[in-house]
Amino acid sequence: MRVVKKFGGSSVATTEKIKNIAKDIAKNYKHGDEVVIVVSAMGKTTDELIKLAKEISKTPDVRELDSLLSIGEQQSISLLSMALKEEGCKAISLTGAQAGIKTGGVHTKNKIESIKADRIENHLQNGEIVIVAGFQGVNENGDITTLGRGGSDTSAVALAAALKCECEIYTDVTGIYGVDPRVYVNAKKLDKISYEEMMEMANLGAGVMETRAVEIGKKYGVRIYVGQTLGVETGTYICDNSEIIEKKAVTGISINKNVIMVNLENFSAIPKNVATIFNNLAEHSINVDMISQNEVENVKGSIGFTCPLTDEHFLNNSLKDIKKHIPEIELTKRTGVIKISLVGIGMISNFGVAAKVFEVLSDIDAQFYQCTTSEISISLIIKESDAVKVVERLAQVFSI
Amino acid sequence: MRVVKKFGGSSVATTEKIKNIAKDIAKNYKHGDEVVIVVSAMGKTTDELIKLAKEISKTPDVRELDSLLSIGEQQSISLLSMALKEEGCKAISLTGAQAGIKTGGVHTKNKIESIKADRIENHLQNGEIVIVAGFQGVNENGDITTLGRGGSDTSAVALAAALKCECEIYTDVTGIYGVDPRVYVNAKKLDKISYEEMMEMANLGAGVMETRAVEIGKKYGVRIYVGQTLGVETGTYICDNSEIIEKKAVTGISINKNVIMVNLENFSAIPKNVATIFNNLAEHSINVDMISQNEVENVKGSIGFTCPLTDEHFLNNSLKDIKKHIPEIELTKRTGVIKISLVGIGMISNFGVAAKVFEVLSDIDAQFYQCTTSEISISLIIKESDAVKVVERLAQVFSI
Repeated sequence: MRVVKKFGGSSVATTEKIKNIAKDIAKNYKHGDEVVIVVSAMGKTTDELIKLAKEISKTPDVRELDSLLSIGEQQSISLLSMALKEEGCKAISLTGAQAGIKTGGVHTKNKIESIKADRIENHLQNGEIVIVAGFQGVNENGDITTLGRGGSDTSAVALAAALKCECEIYTDVTGIYGVDPRVYVNAKKLDKISYEEMMEMANLGAGVMETRAVEIGKKYGVRIYVGQTLGVETGTYICDNSEIIEKKAVTGISINKNVIMVNLENFSAIPKNVATIFNNLAEHSINVDMISQNEVENVKGSIGFTCPLTDEHFLNNSLKDIKKHIPEIELTKRTGVIKISLVGIGMISNFGVAAKVFEVLSDIDAQFYQCTTSEISISLIIKESDAVKVVERLAQVFSI
Repeated sequence: MRVVKKFGGSSVATTEKIKNIAKDIAKNYKHGDEVVIVVSAMGKTTDELIKLAKEISKTPDVRELDSLLSIGEQQSISLLSMALKEEGCKAISLTGAQAGIKTGGVHTKNKIESIKADRIENHLQNGEIVIVAGFQGVNENGDITTLGRGGSDTSAVALAAALKCECEIYTDVTGIYGVDPRVYVNAKKLDKISYEEMMEMANLGAGVMETRAVEIGKKYGVRIYVGQTLGVETGTYICDNSEIIEKKAVTGISINKNVIMVNLENFSAIPKNVATIFNNLAEHSINVDMISQNEVENVKGSIGFTCPLTDEHFLNNSLKDIKKHIPEIELTKRTGVIKISLVGIGMISNFGVAAKVFEVLSDIDAQFYQCTTSEISISLIIKESDAVKVVERLAQVFSI
């Protein structure tokens, strides 16, 4: 069997850990599998490199930053290759460039454009384990590029697509849970989750997998397994919807604390004004989410939206600007709130989900400030103090 | 003016030091010079990487070791490039591969085969400072290679040869001295030294410059300047013999404490026996130096040689072997000795040098155990306890 296995930074944080995963990989190898490994930089290496760069410059040149950051993965692939040879395996490490990973876009936020996998195929045919540096590639100028945070997941899934095999992502957690087990102790681990649900969960702040990696998985039909490094428990498969027989109405609930809510009222909600508002927010680089508009009367409007709490400083500046352009507008900001999102591919055919959600809120007398929906999700802004109670009850009701 | 400047590991050991040399380089740049910089890894980075590799394997795979060690220089070039941009310079960092440095030979001990300098030329024409990773290149398989210890000097001089310009080597010391100033406080710094003398000095253990770098300098006529990083004193030029007007009989005295002396006596010094001895020493990887043979009678011979004290363990094994093959042989080992070598291109035309040396030894009643000569050097084995006195007196006699 051919497989791409990816190990994150905490799995290769020390030479001791590297030796342990080498022992584990050696078992696959001796079993006759064709194995490609993708690794991240050891532990906090990337953060330390960024710190060095910041000591030199507040705004380090991005081409140089890419070249600098890429050494973290080059270190871990070499060490892992040495460790695999100690275990009696044939092994070879390849940088992103050597592995044929071509990227485009802007430095520090590159995207994989293509993978020329000939060299990897040759090494596999030669009976070697191929260890590829995650997070990096090479652009058309021959410059080293990086894929941004979480880029090693993307490297792994893209390689699996090019090599037409499954991708296994090894991490600290035992799999993907419907609800964060730190919030709800009875949370169940999912056996399977669809690409669409996982993407929605990732976007909504679940933080287990990089969205881009799941997108590539969906596009090329790569089954992605998420499990614990050296763990014994079976993890979770991210796979095509058609593989999931029993489609639950709600697969997971994501919880996002980094949120602030804004209401704009008592102004003329004509397109010109609405455009002014959102252009201004964009100019201040504010990541606007959950927009809802209610027409109160014929001419007076009310618009609500959320944005990350970490953008509050920019938000304040933007709101001042907006007030200058539309003096009659009334602004209210609400903090101490939390966004919970119910995600489920089954929602498309389960019309009663929203009704059940509101019933739960009513039962426990929890107020909600805003609600938006997509085809496969419902998001609510509630009081932070109500969050645990609401999540627990929803998890029970939907058997998550 | 076009120039290649090389900075060693201690000159770029911290981000603070990197910023300081960036300020200095910026002056050249703003003066309109075309500047290529070669840097080593920061401080002890290479040693730390070797330590990591040794934690994984006692005999790390050499291809992987090369890939691992190369990241040290990749780190320093990126950081220096960022620092130069902070100083308002246009700058770009290039790995060995990106700079077109092609190598051949075996991993960890590669040799530069050719430099395709087109990319560097383009960047220079574009008004950029080009920062090249020392110590590394790429082989015909596209694998990263390193040049062995001191390889950054070699990179710098080879680049200067390809770019047809001078090479400046910046280091901890203010230049090249005729005698180690730690041994003889009145030692004089040389303004100039010929390639041949420098190579002889380096081989004899002076340790300032890598011999290979000087060899390349000689072959391609690259003038090499050795001076102190950010220092104000003028350093030393390594240049062609023809540039040196006043040819001193003795330019320098090198001192080597890492030496053990062996005498083999009372055996038939026929070629077969001599071959047996030196083949055996070679099989035990002993670096034999200063061979002298004296025929005592018609058939009985005596052979003396020296080798590094650090090889003593291998030497003992070899001597046991030799005794098995030639049972009548008598072996004596002498430690507590030191090798001093007088080097001077002027020696060729100064026949009295040896006589003066023996006069000095006689004057201060210093015994010597062995003596060998080359065209431009005389080497002596003396008692370690006599070394300082002998070196001081020789330095005075030859005005070094």
